[in-house]
Amino acid sequence: MIKAGILGATGYAGLELTRLLLRHPQAQVAAVGSVSFEGKKLYEVYPSLREICGLECKNADAVLAASDVVFAALPHGLSQETAAQCAAQGKKFIDLGADFRLDDPEVYEKWYGCEAVHPELHQRAVYGLPELFREAIRGTDIVGNPGCYPTSVALGLAPALRAGAVETEGLVVDAKSGTTGAGRGLAQNTHFPDCNEAFSAYKVAAHRHTPEIEQTLTRVAGKRATVTFVPHLLPVNRGILSTIYARLKPGFSLETVRGLYEDAYRGEPFVRVLPAGAAVNIRDVRCSNYCDIQLYEDPHTGLLIVTAVIDNMVKGAAGQAIQNMNLLFGLPETTGLDMIPPAF
Amino acid sequence: MIKAGILGATGYAGLELTRLLLRHPQAQVAAVGSVSFEGKKLYEVYPSLREICGLECKNADAVLAASDVVFAALPHGLSQETAAQCAAQGKKFIDLGADFRLDDPEVYEKWYGCEAVHPELHQRAVYGLPELFREAIRGTDIVGNPGCYPTSVALGLAPALRAGAVETEGLVVDAKSGTTGAGRGLAQNTHFPDCNEAFSAYKVAAHRHTPEIEQTLTRVAGKRATVTFVPHLLPVNRGILSTIYARLKPGFSLETVRGLYEDAYRGEPFVRVLPAGAAVNIRDVRCSNYCDIQLYEDPHTGLLIVTAVIDNMVKGAAGQAIQNMNLLFGLPETTGLDMIPPAF
Amino acid sequence: MIKAGILGATGYAGLELTRLLLRHPQAQVAAVGSVSFEGKKLYEVYPSLREICGLECKNADAVLAASDVVFAALPHGLSQETAAQCAAQGKKFIDLGADFRLDDPEVYEKWYGCEAVHPELHQRAVYGLPELFREAIRGTDIVGNPGCYPTSVALGLAPALRAGAVETEGLVVDAKSGTTGAGRGLAQNTHFPDCNEAFSAYKVAAHRHTPEIEQTLTRVAGKRATVTFVPHLLPVNRGILSTIYARLKPGFSLETVRGLYEDAYRGEPFVRVLPAGAAVNIRDVRCSNYCDIQLYEDPHTGLLIVTAVIDNMVKGAAGQAIQNMNLLFGLPETTGLDMIPPAF
Amino acid sequence: MIKAGILGATGYAGLELTRLLLRHPQAQVAAVGSVSFEGKKLYEVYPSLREICGLECKNADAVLAASDVVFAALPHGLSQETAAQCAAQGKKFIDLGADFRLDDPEVYEKWYGCEAVHPELHQRAVYGLPELFREAIRGTDIVGNPGCYPTSVALGLAPALRAGAVETEGLVVDAKSGTTGAGRGLAQNTHFPDCNEAFSAYKVAAHRHTPEIEQTLTRVAGKRATVTFVPHLLPVNRGILSTIYARLKPGFSLETVRGLYEDAYRGEPFVRVLPAGAAVNIRDVRCSNYCDIQLYEDPHTGLLIVTAVIDNMVKGAAGQAIQNMNLLFGLPETTGLDMIPPAF
Repeated sequence: MIKAGILGATGYAGLELTRLLLRHPQAQVAAVGSVSFEGKKLYEVYPSLREICGLECKNADAVLAASDVVFAALPHGLSQETAAQCAAQGKKFIDLGADFRLDDPEVYEKWYGCEAVHPELHQRAVYGLPELFREAIRGTDIVGNPGCYPTSVALGLAPALRAGAVETEGLVVDAKSGTTGAGRGLAQNTHFPDCNEAFSAYKVAAHRHTPEIEQTLTRVAGKRATVTFVPHLLPVNRGILSTIYARLKPGFSLETVRGLYEDAYRGEPFVRVLPAGAAVNIRDVRCSNYCDIQLYEDPHTGLLIVTAVIDNMVKGAAGQAIQNMNLLFGLPETTGLDMIPPAF
Repeated sequence: MIKAGILGATGYAGLELTRLLLRHPQAQVAAVGSVSFEGKKLYEVYPSLREICGLECKNADAVLAASDVVFAALPHGLSQETAAQCAAQGKKFIDLGADFRLDDPEVYEKWYGCEAVHPELHQRAVYGLPELFREAIRGTDIVGNPGCYPTSVALGLAPALRAGAVETEGLVVDAKSGTTGAGRGLAQNTHFPDCNEAFSAYKVAAHRHTPEIEQTLTRVAGKRATVTFVPHLLPVNRGILSTIYARLKPGFSLETVRGLYEDAYRGEPFVRVLPAGAAVNIRDVRCSNYCDIQLYEDPHTGLLIVTAVIDNMVKGAAGQAIQNMNLLFGLPETTGLDMIPPAF
Repeated sequence: MIKAGILGATGYAGLELTRLLLRHPQAQVAAVGSVSFEGKKLYEVYPSLREICGLECKNADAVLAASDVVFAALPHGLSQETAAQCAAQGKKFIDLGADFRLDDPEVYEKWYGCEAVHPELHQRAVYGLPELFREAIRGTDIVGNPGCYPTSVALGLAPALRAGAVETEGLVVDAKSGTTGAGRGLAQNTHFPDCNEAFSAYKVAAHRHTPEIEQTLTRVAGKRATVTFVPHLLPVNRGILSTIYARLKPGFSLETVRGLYEDAYRGEPFVRVLPAGAAVNIRDVRCSNYCDIQLYEDPHTGLLIVTAVIDNMVKGAAGQAIQNMNLLFGLPETTGLDMIPPAF
Repeated sequence: MIKAGILGATGYAGLELTRLLLRHPQAQVAAVGSVSFEGKKLYEVYPSLREICGLECKNADAVLAASDVVFAALPHGLSQETAAQCAAQGKKFIDLGADFRLDDPEVYEKWYGCEAVHPELHQRAVYGLPELFREAIRGTDIVGNPGCYPTSVALGLAPALRAGAVETEGLVVDAKSGTTGAGRGLAQNTHFPDCNEAFSAYKVAAHRHTPEIEQTLTRVAGKRATVTFVPHLLPVNRGILSTIYARLKPGFSLETVRGLYEDAYRGEPFVRVLPAGAAVNIRDVRCSNYCDIQLYEDPHTGLLIVTAVIDNMVKGAAGQAIQNMNLLFGLPETTGLDMIPPAF
């Protein structure tokens, strides 16, 4: 059994990760960490866990000491020292935050306002999107788990970009996320009466996931990709739907592009390319690790339209982190991730 | 592996049962039946199942032929013939509908307008609430799976009634259910704009679950129990909260009653009696087989107040049906039912 | 034009009151007060008011100086000094908080932990439920505007109690309120992902509205009434539904009681007694000053069941406060309150 | 008083129109029509109207006979004969459906599958978007009231297109609408458990509002405009947010464009151009006739991003129809439309 430790276990991503790992057949939750709730039982913070998990929140040192692999679901900037400690102690490290996602330390500092203090660790770190970078993940011990929005966009565009089927400039991503993406911390815009029956865009063309999205798309396309990224806050708990607009290049039709996607994802257990006529819905991937994708063409403007949905808490955070853990430990990638989305 | 067949698999309860059985380690879904969608793949009706379950909807005969145990999630009146066929063929039968819940055929006919056509089957049938009637369930092959509201009320009152701690007359149950309880069929009151931001009582003191509730409470109390039962429709997908008002008898305090509940449910894997100070919430049992219970006393009126929550689709339907199947086949009762409620 | 000042205008009740008064044909909003947002424009806090209301939040003294009538939507304990100032300056005062609702200073201190510092003002103050105490309101200049839950319960029970049709002991009120009732302040239980798809009881048999409910019912019945009061938090923005259980006295049937209600509320512009067969719904009174009432009898237990709905922000707070203002100034009671509930 | 008749009064748009006209100071609801509910009182279909409106649903002839102006909120294809009758009888006609929106009968037939049977009426009809075509509306007696999505897009883009600030080709509109847009008719995708906690795109690049949007944008721009239009279904009752992506032309910056919008809408009572830093939200225009607009530039891709919100039932249907009526009858445009959006 893999001994897993989770830092930031009382945040939403950390808690979801704990919940899923508690049912992982090859792992056990060895320890959970929380700064805010140290000394409390996890079920005192999340009563849904009563009589299921008796773990008490510990400090970071105690979590590291108990674990073979450490997951960090912490505010950005706080994972670097932990990564260094893990490296020193020969433990694997999976960061659900943003500290190890961006290759260029200057870009990281510009968007997050933090310094990259361990350049050698950033070089060792691999961007943990298994469908695109599986082999590299297998060969590392530090994983930067992708952001929720970037996961949906990268999976939604990779086959088209890799084949050169769409222009890499002028991509537009109009994304909508459920409120768990904003975390457990209280805020006016997620206060129920303000958020319910409401809908708005936020951080328009200014969200920190923009450079992460562009980095991945550029890598996949083999040339510089630029994206206009506009996120919106949906009055639901879970789910991201990204609607992506790209200009088809001459010679590519919807049919050829659909073929590219089907080929790219045929063997992928967590990506479902829907047949023509079906529509993706955040409902259909809820509480699961699936990414569902549908493709359209606007015949009178020549745009390719991709819709991609994930559960932001699972494929967009905790589920993907487990998928990465499975890769790091040589397990089948689907181990512990066979959740079937409830249809309602 | 137990071969399970599900009739009415495209209704909400049938679909949830199918979803849970697909991950049951000792059972396989041998066949699914649907009148409305015969010949269609189940995932064409519920796209969340795409690439997970390739089963095609069959007619009832085909489902019976393929199965060791048959679950029926059908409108009332339709299960009796199927039960007779199962009995003739030596198959176990678990009815998620109302046909085998009521002992008295006259009561059944009065409330449901159907005739009890196979009295001998009704006599063999056992009311499938394992926490109360476990041994009887083990000894039968026809189970009447309880209704959703009655499950929450029976678990919420049994320890107090059994000990004679409350009056059996004048019980009041104010219950609130999510919309999946109303099923997949379209109706004006579950049309989104009519149902969202709305709340109302329905079938006040006239709901068909009333005689079922009274039957169980009477059996547990050993004397006639009467209940005023008022259900309400909550604008959420899943969950029932029953708020139950009972008059404490002299000599019983909140503390003694709490002790009765803790004793009664100590070994029960699916019932959690919360400590004083905590509150039950439908959120904390969602997508799980738990029933959470909290107790209060109104010191200035002498009423005992019990709040009990379940997921109406799981402990109130599909999960409990699997719990019964486990009993019928001698499996540990929790097999395939270890879902942890997502906290959000 | 009546010059109206609103203290606590940036809270939910204060804001709703401001919104309604801005369209009152005989009143103008002379000034709005806010401790938290003094110096800010009201539309900076509530952008829905942009280009509609240019008022800046002032301190209490400035609000009083500008007003003929002062409304206070403040946390309890803070209204008493303001009331005294208003009395000294000959201004009318309507308190949307709890400071002037309870007759007995000891009860007030016990439940709210505040001292009643101006006993003479409490004696002058009238409980502002116009349908029950209209004449007294006309004769005062200090009104204690009723709480939201108590409004629904008092209107729901008054005709039956006044006629002696039900027992005054052992009343049970199972009430459900939308989240605006919890106010604008941030809290974990009204954080969207915690509150959405959730439902729970709170302050069971311990809510501060209990003594207020009993005081009014006792007054109406002419003898001591006791109530077990259990509120629940509904995942909607607005609306209260109170389900009330009372024992019918011998000689009273549902029909006679229905007649009592129809007689009592025949001339009331804001109370609608529904005909048999219809159900009250919080949706049908949303954003209006209506209270809808429906009556049932449980034939096999002899209980009378009353369901009453209001919009907690309107008839339960701001609308009723305007109704009281209209009475104080000799206007028709419906002035400025002719909002039609949107059906969706 | 203008005598107004409403055909299709039991649909959502017709009902909202009735609700607003009941409080219009210069109009009275003379008659309401409904095919499905002829002979029933309107409040039997919408109980929120009980004791407010006693009108009975009539057939179309009776409605016409009673009215100076006829509003039709009917499925497409059904308004043309009514328009002809109104023309013959000298009554003004405002169509909330699609029959009189498109100039080109071939486009109408292609997208709606109906023939334009009265070409002369189509020529007389004016597209009823007052902010853009006010003078023409004043001079007609047949108005084609705009679609909900097209209203938000036209107001959101007009100032930029008129000034030639953005390219007219390659416009992208990613729109999100509440469920009332889908109407009162029952459907699986608006069944509460299917729609709640769900989100999806529909009719991608194939929605009937596309030609209407392009027609208006082309007219405003003075040259052919093409739009990729992708609508989504939001799990809320009311509101549309359109996120619009357009390429800024050389020489135009966000600041110059903002100036264009402020100039264009300075005198408009129902359009609010928000200052930089604020975000539009469907919540802030709910139940009102406002359209709120915010502008952004993506500095690294040169895209102008416009977000525009309306209440689909008001500015997107009933409110705009009243605005048009006011114009036809020479009333101030805001008459009967001074609703303040509730903030929660």
